[in-house]
Amino acid sequence: MSTPATPVELRELIRRQEWTRPTTGVCPGIIQANLVMMPEAAAFEFLLFCVRNPKPCPILDVLEPGAFEPGIAEGADLRSDLPRYRVFQNGEFRKEVEDVKDIFRDDMVSFLLGCSFSFENAMLAADLPIRNLEEGKNVSMYTTGIDCRAAGRFQSKMVVSMRPMTEAQAVRAVQVTTRFHLTHGAPVHLGDPEKIGIADLSRPDFGDAVTTAPGEIPVFWACGVTSQLAATSAPLPLVITHSPGHMFVSDLKDEDLTIL
Amino acid sequence: MSTPATPVELRELIRRQEWTRPTTGVCPGIIQANLVMMPEAAAFEFLLFCVRNPKPCPILDVLEPGAFEPGIAEGADLRSDLPRYRVFQNGEFRKEVEDVKDIFRDDMVSFLLGCSFSFENAMLAADLPIRNLEEGKNVSMYTTGIDCRAAGRFQSKMVVSMRPMTEAQAVRAVQVTTRFHLTHGAPVHLGDPEKIGIADLSRPDFGDAVTTAPGEIPVFWACGVTSQLAATSAPLPLVITHSPGHMFVSDLKDEDLTIL
Repeated sequence: MSTPATPVELRELIRRQEWTRPTTGVCPGIIQANLVMMPEAAAFEFLLFCVRNPKPCPILDVLEPGAFEPGIAEGADLRSDLPRYRVFQNGEFRKEVEDVKDIFRDDMVSFLLGCSFSFENAMLAADLPIRNLEEGKNVSMYTTGIDCRAAGRFQSKMVVSMRPMTEAQAVRAVQVTTRFHLTHGAPVHLGDPEKIGIADLSRPDFGDAVTTAPGEIPVFWACGVTSQLAATSAPLPLVITHSPGHMFVSDLKDEDLTIL
Repeated sequence: MSTPATPVELRELIRRQEWTRPTTGVCPGIIQANLVMMPEAAAFEFLLFCVRNPKPCPILDVLEPGAFEPGIAEGADLRSDLPRYRVFQNGEFRKEVEDVKDIFRDDMVSFLLGCSFSFENAMLAADLPIRNLEEGKNVSMYTTGIDCRAAGRFQSKMVVSMRPMTEAQAVRAVQVTTRFHLTHGAPVHLGDPEKIGIADLSRPDFGDAVTTAPGEIPVFWACGVTSQLAATSAPLPLVITHSPGHMFVSDLKDEDLTIL
């Protein structure tokens, strides 16, 4: 598989199931998104959850019930244009699939939420280290002890992603990522992992462990995986999400969503 | 009526109907909010409208159906703690009242949206002119030709507020207000009013006309009145809003909602 040059080319490959890998690093500078699909009957409460927790669940787009072409990618089909999906029934994980056209229902509402892949490009441009890219791994993610604000039936602890760097680099990273408020924005914590309920950095709850070099501290950003925990915290008949790392690649540029 | 020192004191005066005036200029540095209440059956679509139009309708808080104590003001009661309300039935304006306890229903969802009063304090601190305050008037507001993104049954043109200033002051105003993204943020337009469909600056659609001095240009910010037009664009059985200028005064400080 060669690397596609544009989001449209990538989504075509994915739709034909010729690209089933993670989307980390593809189409740099283009906004990627977390996906959550659920029945309309629960959509108001879930939208409320996202609104109340904008750092982990920044809303990029929400579609009308039954719609699958998002406003942020003309001609795309959310039922087939992600490399891999997770299917949950009654709150329990059932299977991973590469297409959900057969199970998508007319009452399903699709949520696209910001992803930290978007600010990694800006961090690299600022010569900040992204250890998981250096080591060819998935980013380290942890379930913290931080309670999100609940909404109706939905609740979750906040999940964070972690990137190790020096203190001076951490200051610069705060500056660089602040601009990207719709893709998690500034860090939620830096330094002592125990203060946010993380017992062991070498054992992430999602993704891979990475090396923290001498003189480096961990820096933590709110992570979109929080939305998956929240969406599956209630026993809904059907919830569909992307598979971690297998994001929806939009037509928006990172810069389209910066606040300054 | 003396000027109350704290939001709690102000809300108590309002609840006793001892303060029925606009809230412009009271409790400087404290976040004020637009209010929209509507039945739960339409709340998802209206929340979607706000999410899709964050400049005119920045979401500060959304309450569960039937709830009236907001998360941003402990002990407050949205049914009585605004100086004046507007009541709409089947999309038509019915009356203005000072309390809605008798008509509030268990299925009503309350939305609190950001208000530009919040950045006026920061503009004054930066020595930028706010002509309507100088002239003791309400801010000038206009319905533009700009279409908001529709959501379900809700649609609206964007309403803007206008403040005249020099070009150099306009540049500074962009910088100052950018920080306040949850209270309308940076301007949506500056200069030629006709470009956004405003025919005559001397005839605002809401509020009062103010003087534009020689050498000044109009600077336009998205305005929360947009949410009232949208909420009443569909013939819902009951919609309650604040009366223009008679906002909900929260416990949050302006600085609590800045992005940097």
